[in-house]
Amino acid sequence: MRPSKRAADELRKVTLERAVARYAEGSCLVSFGETKVLCTASLEERGPPWLRGSGKGWVTAEYAMLPRATHERTRREVNSGKPSGRTQEIQRLIGRSLRAVTNLPAIGERQITIDCDVIQADGGTRTAAITGAWVALNDCFAWMQKRSIISVNPLRDHVAAVSCGIHQGVPVLDLEYAEDSTAETDANFVITGSGGLVEVQGTAEGKPFSEAEFLELLRLAKTGVGSLVALQKQVLAGSAA
Amino acid sequence: MRPSKRAADELRKVTLERAVARYAEGSCLVSFGETKVLCTASLEERGPPWLRGSGKGWVTAEYAMLPRATHERTRREVNSGKPSGRTQEIQRLIGRSLRAVTNLPAIGERQITIDCDVIQADGGTRTAAITGAWVALNDCFAWMQKRSIISVNPLRDHVAAVSCGIHQGVPVLDLEYAEDSTAETDANFVITGSGGLVEVQGTAEGKPFSEAEFLELLRLAKTGVGSLVALQKQVLAGSAA
Amino acid sequence: MRPSKRAADELRKVTLERAVARYAEGSCLVSFGETKVLCTASLEERGPPWLRGSGKGWVTAEYAMLPRATHERTRREVNSGKPSGRTQEIQRLIGRSLRAVTNLPAIGERQITIDCDVIQADGGTRTAAITGAWVALNDCFAWMQKRSIISVNPLRDHVAAVSCGIHQGVPVLDLEYAEDSTAETDANFVITGSGGLVEVQGTAEGKPFSEAEFLELLRLAKTGVGSLVALQKQVLAGSAA
Amino acid sequence: MRPSKRAADELRKVTLERAVARYAEGSCLVSFGETKVLCTASLEERGPPWLRGSGKGWVTAEYAMLPRATHERTRREVNSGKPSGRTQEIQRLIGRSLRAVTNLPAIGERQITIDCDVIQADGGTRTAAITGAWVALNDCFAWMQKRSIISVNPLRDHVAAVSCGIHQGVPVLDLEYAEDSTAETDANFVITGSGGLVEVQGTAEGKPFSEAEFLELLRLAKTGVGSLVALQKQVLAGSAA
Amino acid sequence: MRPSKRAADELRKVTLERAVARYAEGSCLVSFGETKVLCTASLEERGPPWLRGSGKGWVTAEYAMLPRATHERTRREVNSGKPSGRTQEIQRLIGRSLRAVTNLPAIGERQITIDCDVIQADGGTRTAAITGAWVALNDCFAWMQKRSIISVNPLRDHVAAVSCGIHQGVPVLDLEYAEDSTAETDANFVITGSGGLVEVQGTAEGKPFSEAEFLELLRLAKTGVGSLVALQKQVLAGSAA
Amino acid sequence: MRPSKRAADELRKVTLERAVARYAEGSCLVSFGETKVLCTASLEERGPPWLRGSGKGWVTAEYAMLPRATHERTRREVNSGKPSGRTQEIQRLIGRSLRAVTNLPAIGERQITIDCDVIQADGGTRTAAITGAWVALNDCFAWMQKRSIISVNPLRDHVAAVSCGIHQGVPVLDLEYAEDSTAETDANFVITGSGGLVEVQGTAEGKPFSEAEFLELLRLAKTGVGSLVALQKQVLAGSAA
Repeated sequence: MRPSKRAADELRKVTLERAVARYAEGSCLVSFGETKVLCTASLEERGPPWLRGSGKGWVTAEYAMLPRATHERTRREVNSGKPSGRTQEIQRLIGRSLRAVTNLPAIGERQITIDCDVIQADGGTRTAAITGAWVALNDCFAWMQKRSIISVNPLRDHVAAVSCGIHQGVPVLDLEYAEDSTAETDANFVITGSGGLVEVQGTAEGKPFSEAEFLELLRLAKTGVGSLVALQKQVLAGSAA
Repeated sequence: MRPSKRAADELRKVTLERAVARYAEGSCLVSFGETKVLCTASLEERGPPWLRGSGKGWVTAEYAMLPRATHERTRREVNSGKPSGRTQEIQRLIGRSLRAVTNLPAIGERQITIDCDVIQADGGTRTAAITGAWVALNDCFAWMQKRSIISVNPLRDHVAAVSCGIHQGVPVLDLEYAEDSTAETDANFVITGSGGLVEVQGTAEGKPFSEAEFLELLRLAKTGVGSLVALQKQVLAGSAA
Repeated sequence: MRPSKRAADELRKVTLERAVARYAEGSCLVSFGETKVLCTASLEERGPPWLRGSGKGWVTAEYAMLPRATHERTRREVNSGKPSGRTQEIQRLIGRSLRAVTNLPAIGERQITIDCDVIQADGGTRTAAITGAWVALNDCFAWMQKRSIISVNPLRDHVAAVSCGIHQGVPVLDLEYAEDSTAETDANFVITGSGGLVEVQGTAEGKPFSEAEFLELLRLAKTGVGSLVALQKQVLAGSAA
Repeated sequence: MRPSKRAADELRKVTLERAVARYAEGSCLVSFGETKVLCTASLEERGPPWLRGSGKGWVTAEYAMLPRATHERTRREVNSGKPSGRTQEIQRLIGRSLRAVTNLPAIGERQITIDCDVIQADGGTRTAAITGAWVALNDCFAWMQKRSIISVNPLRDHVAAVSCGIHQGVPVLDLEYAEDSTAETDANFVITGSGGLVEVQGTAEGKPFSEAEFLELLRLAKTGVGSLVALQKQVLAGSAA
Repeated sequence: MRPSKRAADELRKVTLERAVARYAEGSCLVSFGETKVLCTASLEERGPPWLRGSGKGWVTAEYAMLPRATHERTRREVNSGKPSGRTQEIQRLIGRSLRAVTNLPAIGERQITIDCDVIQADGGTRTAAITGAWVALNDCFAWMQKRSIISVNPLRDHVAAVSCGIHQGVPVLDLEYAEDSTAETDANFVITGSGGLVEVQGTAEGKPFSEAEFLELLRLAKTGVGSLVALQKQVLAGSAA
Repeated sequence: MRPSKRAADELRKVTLERAVARYAEGSCLVSFGETKVLCTASLEERGPPWLRGSGKGWVTAEYAMLPRATHERTRREVNSGKPSGRTQEIQRLIGRSLRAVTNLPAIGERQITIDCDVIQADGGTRTAAITGAWVALNDCFAWMQKRSIISVNPLRDHVAAVSCGIHQGVPVLDLEYAEDSTAETDANFVITGSGGLVEVQGTAEGKPFSEAEFLELLRLAKTGVGSLVALQKQVLAGSAA
């Protein structure tokens, strides 16, 4: 039995709230249960220096946690002078995931920066961030289309992400903190709307896992991402941001 | 006429929402119009090293803005390796303001860290932060009393803050960004519930201001803080956090 | 009775010595009693990047203390990798104070950097620095006029500063370290030659102060700055630097 | 056809040279073709602070490249003041991989630091590092056993790693730089001697990959790691380091 | 002919002014012509960690230049986050030079920090600093003796330093900036009162120098240091600091 | 008797191995006994900014030690955020030594960076580095000549370096770590093929040294550098790199 009484393949309650940041070109407050991440998309008219003259744009991401998003207060990274290794790993992952479904030349020589700030953390912040960031990015592109900055939406597909893990010997979907901190194996999957794999990461925290276990985690993830993409479609259908 | 059509001595709509952060001992989401600051109070059982053996506790504050709290995206300070001079000035101000109404020995050798994270910025973030931080700190002390960690509430008085300025020659209360960025004089006042002055800061942005003008700003601030303290009392009366 | 036996409204012995740094375009060694600050003005032909093309110049300031300016040796800030929050607050204050009386377009696209290095510290270093910096800046502008780099002196007025405080319940002018470290309220005033207010900062160190007390501090400061501006005029009248 | 004319499932020539660093408790120079990594294991009698009193030891890793290990000279990370995100990701991966096969309590409260310094880089440096680091760690444990610091070898199993990727549509094993830099999908697998999975990482560089493709990469990796573990056994059998 | 019309073996006018810093245990303002360095000695009751329990004390030095000590303003090192290589070289040199004539166990487990701050720089700042630092250190030890902190003066000998160089083919003593910046060879010598060599540093700026030239520089340095030590003795004889 | 049984004027076994780094334009692995330094020369088509438009090139050097080059593991400097003072001193010394024998205009506006990475450290790493760096630099210039980037070799002479010291009262050549760490005087000499002095550095670790002792160290160094230059000539004569 999971601490939350959820079934092994059951997501937490997920919500995607659009247009939550007054000044951003696109934004989304995503929650996976008690995990809450504010995602904003900011358009900058100047692309990164290494793309100058290429005609291509760029999508990048930054990630941070508010100090008291967590059970115990976490020291601000600015006070240690640099983002931690974990922060850098996560922001590189979010950026790569979004770029995998973006037609970069269709942006022109511009940059979109996605800021993912964790307001509350109960496990799965990086996968929630990717899922919400896609909505913020999509609304930013809609904003640009409305102003004729671009003519077509550069997004080629949806992308969403979910964590899985082996908890007390059982493969489960969408771990909350209580499960995550004691799981034997921890995995994150980033998958597109059409089922393509973008990122697959599995880590044995204690003893190694078997191929069969890993395939079960992958199966759970595909189901979970299916639901997340359906929700993304539903909130976009609701009304323009 | 002010851009917002407010009267010269009229505050923006102010709200104080308690218990907004699941894990913090006290929290408050304060809004002054479109300015929104999330304030959390975190109890640490260990006080700062310089108070070891003194029997006294400490209250300190940290302040930051989300990158897209502002009209244009602001670079994260972690990427420049240290908090800016402005950030440090503000966090020192918030800490001093709260300590001025706190009986530090009544906390015991513990530290309360108040985190003020600006979710959206439309002028007056530091004064909103002080006003909301007092509520978070009060709720943290209530949490500690409920658990018999302390026996009396160490707060001796309310404290709240407001900005004033001279805009197009007219002294006005509680400047929003559009006014603030063009004001000739900018002032911040931190005042207690019983009307004592804790911090007074006035700065000529262009030409110097006169003593008479400064006294009018002080008069406006006292009225404004009166309303803010009344609101603090009202939200505390509502129900326990 | 004050530790120094001075009357409540009595300044320490103040001296302003010009042309003390062989290579600087303007310089002044200011002492307020045992507090000694070396102020130099350095002309750079290139203004800051954000004013490029504006036709305007800039005046900025840096501030530091020699490690053994103080009773106990202070660690050099270079060893902690960045200026402290206090240092940044002070250098921003000095810069704003000087710019408030400077006609920036009259400088052309150049920058004057004022370095204020505290040789000995006995309280009131920031206000002494502002008072001496004005002399160094004035002599730098004279140097530029002599070489026809500018045609008129860009200074529109004098500016000087003084600290005040409430010490053992009595409002007093120009606190030395022994008073400053035990004062209940600490205030700094930056005032022009014609009596305009440029910066007003009052801080309760312990209990809040009243409006009446604050007005008495302001009255003392106006008297003190009057004497300081008179001294600035006298040393300029002496002879060209 | 691969640039190196290798078959899709063919490793580069791999060598493991033991006892290459005179002062280290264990060391191994590993080469995967032109990729060369010097791995040293250093025993420190003091474990990390967070394990004090736990009776457990720790294995950690650091990774760096010599500036001219690469085709173009790379700037030293010390000059930018901190390890890059990529470096941190890699050193966390190496540490986790080794800890997954180590019985930490059997080390006692000590720390082994594995330094992996890339002398020459032609793709796959992190997987070569893990493969060589295991040998260095094993020799360090042998050194400790010989001196009766520990009684049994804390290693529970072998561990080795290899990269795979999809290059011009074909899944291939052990990519060299020329393939790696143009691969559509890039994956790293860390696998134990008994076939358990420790880390699985797959990244789409361009278009997403399918589950079938991913399973083929996993199959290649298992074959490759099988050969690497066999080589580890062979060099250990040779003679004591 | 030297720019200053001095003879090849002629020092600039050298002065050593004692007791110039009110709060320091020892201090000396040294000038070699227009080069002026303020040296202070600060007693700390706690020695460095690596000498704990050894019964020995330590003498260390820090060095910095005021930004406008030089012809062109120099950027403060705090703004680049760390002391430059040149600064570190110089402060290590000053510390070694003083320790070479100090009986460290006679200090007890304490540390003396010598701060050498260059007020004005016209060449030879490091050698002037060493010469003045010895006086400050001696006065600090006298201060300690007077208070019975130590019973004998730990200084075993005088130490002083001077620069030499080959300028337009001619070996000359005590270079000022105009000579130093165009010298072909630049050397610094640190020599004790009894003629022992403590540091010898010679650097070819352009073409290599011969052994004969180097010996002539050494001869000049010995003469120069002789005069500097005589001056140290004379100022100490004057009166107690 | 020296720990190694060498005669006072006897070098350790010295080897110079060329072309050891596949991607560098020039490289040399130098060993002085157990001290091993990998030197690579990297051509960059862009010179340093301060030489833009001068027609001159530049040679610069960087130096580092692998963490376990030493008897005890040394912390990586990247983890303290900056190169240590010792590292900076050494890299400045290597760069100056090479530039002293290089015709900078003959390089054109390009930069050669010499990386000296200490693989194993048993004393004398900086002098070994200079000796090997000259070979790497020479091979880089040969590489450039072969590709007609330059027409003549910009090296005007050989340069090599050796350490000397007074160990148990006896002047000895080429100290290994066991001698170096207990030597009373430590000196480094950088000398050209034709016997010109480039750098002379002597430091008393304990008591001062006499002029006679210093001259004996210089005599030993000249002999040692003579042998090193002969070896450089011999390895170049062997065959083209």
